[in-house]
Amino acid sequence: MTVLALTGGVGGAKLALGLARVLPPDDVVFLVNTGDDFEQLGLPVSPDVDTLTYTLAGLASADAGWGRGDETWHFMETLERLGGETWFRLGDRDLALHIRRRELLASGAGLTAATAAIASALGVRHTILPMSDDAVRTQVLTPGGRLPFQHYFVRDRCVPKALGFEFAGAAKARRNPLIPFGRLTAAVVCPSNPFVSVDPILAVPGIVDALQEADVPIVAVTPVVGGKAIKGPTAKMMRELGIPATTVGVARHYAGFVTRFVIDEVDAAAEPAVRALGMRTTVAQTVMRTLEDRVALARAVVEFAR
Amino acid sequence: MTVLALTGGVGGAKLALGLARVLPPDDVVFLVNTGDDFEQLGLPVSPDVDTLTYTLAGLASADAGWGRGDETWHFMETLERLGGETWFRLGDRDLALHIRRRELLASGAGLTAATAAIASALGVRHTILPMSDDAVRTQVLTPGGRLPFQHYFVRDRCVPKALGFEFAGAAKARRNPLIPFGRLTAAVVCPSNPFVSVDPILAVPGIVDALQEADVPIVAVTPVVGGKAIKGPTAKMMRELGIPATTVGVARHYAGFVTRFVIDEVDAAAEPAVRALGMRTTVAQTVMRTLEDRVALARAVVEFAR
Repeated sequence: MTVLALTGGVGGAKLALGLARVLPPDDVVFLVNTGDDFEQLGLPVSPDVDTLTYTLAGLASADAGWGRGDETWHFMETLERLGGETWFRLGDRDLALHIRRRELLASGAGLTAATAAIASALGVRHTILPMSDDAVRTQVLTPGGRLPFQHYFVRDRCVPKALGFEFAGAAKARRNPLIPFGRLTAAVVCPSNPFVSVDPILAVPGIVDALQEADVPIVAVTPVVGGKAIKGPTAKMMRELGIPATTVGVARHYAGFVTRFVIDEVDAAAEPAVRALGMRTTVAQTVMRTLEDRVALARAVVEFAR
Repeated sequence: MTVLALTGGVGGAKLALGLARVLPPDDVVFLVNTGDDFEQLGLPVSPDVDTLTYTLAGLASADAGWGRGDETWHFMETLERLGGETWFRLGDRDLALHIRRRELLASGAGLTAATAAIASALGVRHTILPMSDDAVRTQVLTPGGRLPFQHYFVRDRCVPKALGFEFAGAAKARRNPLIPFGRLTAAVVCPSNPFVSVDPILAVPGIVDALQEADVPIVAVTPVVGGKAIKGPTAKMMRELGIPATTVGVARHYAGFVTRFVIDEVDAAAEPAVRALGMRTTVAQTVMRTLEDRVALARAVVEFAR
């Protein structure tokens, strides 16, 4: 089989790691949100691509949900003393990835090629594809105005109310040409934030169309369990957007695109409501605490996607 | 008094530290070579400015002769694993200085203002002036062609034969406008490499002229002792250029500009030959192993410059 797994940051990367353990590199390709990307300290930062790279390389921080586990902060401490901008934390080792990406981009590589070079150097065998090599920049519309995503997410800690989202540049972005639409047998929407991790991918022209033309199962795994998001501001955003912060709310958001929906065990009672949206459903343990949880959910998803 | 001290890297910074201990910030200003500057990993690197900054801040590495003493190398180790360019070593803390300088320059500051902001943040109270805010780039002419200075000095470890030097951009560079020519009482040429540390400063239009118009003693401290350079490739360069690698050879190089010359004790016999060049001379211990050596030489130089 060939699975295209759409993913954002930490939540998605958990299932992605499971998929990478269950499926060999030829059988699963990761398509990653780049709407979070921005430039910081003159360096190109791709948070979701990096989270997945570090996760698949076995280097991700188990605690922080971003960055590397084996990290030191001497650069950041010194930058702070020097009066530099330090709200976005870059560890000493993480910084090397950003400097290297800057070098590769400056030498003419696209983000896809730069990502492949870095992932390969870190021993990642699966393919990580940024959704596009063109810049797409998620903007969060708030009562105080439009915020670049990382300002909203990291600097302002998701405190401002989200009124909506815009994906600047998406309409003109070219989808990653290496997406293997021709041989796909399924797509998986990982349990990432639907609004700021998955929607930017779907906003790149030609991705939704090609998936629908491929006529393969499109399986989404709920990022909302028991009315709460496992990680991040998904539930808060849903409330602010006037959407019920439930697994049914997520399913409704994906209706018309996703064809199969994985509900958590605690929300099993929601199956009829999701089926009423025209989706097939299955129930699984979607909360992934351990590596075994990730692998088990990946197996269930792959089975459900066949 | 007001002393303008011309300096390059490590050798010069030793005397500069002594001068900073002997003279308060109002009484000595450091004018620093920027011919070594270059861009590495997308960052603006100013090796001589940084060596002096770290030295005056008490942060310089005692062993390496460059960089900080309290340094770690996690960035560089990771960059190497990622296939990045690592011949020019930037420590984790040193990197913060370079990122901060890039930020400051990108926000419109000149090198002088960026240097002042960084030095101030590190607690340096004396004034460090780059010779110019305009780019001057020392080139080493070798049998294999023209080499940018850091490629010659660091990457190729001074192995290529030096046939001559060019200071690209010097002719159009504007001298640092903050040099206090109007109130100078002396200039000191620190024991830096005459060819690649001091000559680039002298190549910036208006510096030599203004010093001569100021009609103040111009005191040079020999960087060559007993036919050897204390540090770096000075003696090797002199041999390759067909100049005797002696303190007299250095004095002859400075003849017509320098008016007073400090000879090391081991070369006391050279005094008549240096005087024959029209310079006043004094003999001192110029080899600076300890802080006390630096202070003692600085005192002797200041006394000699009155």
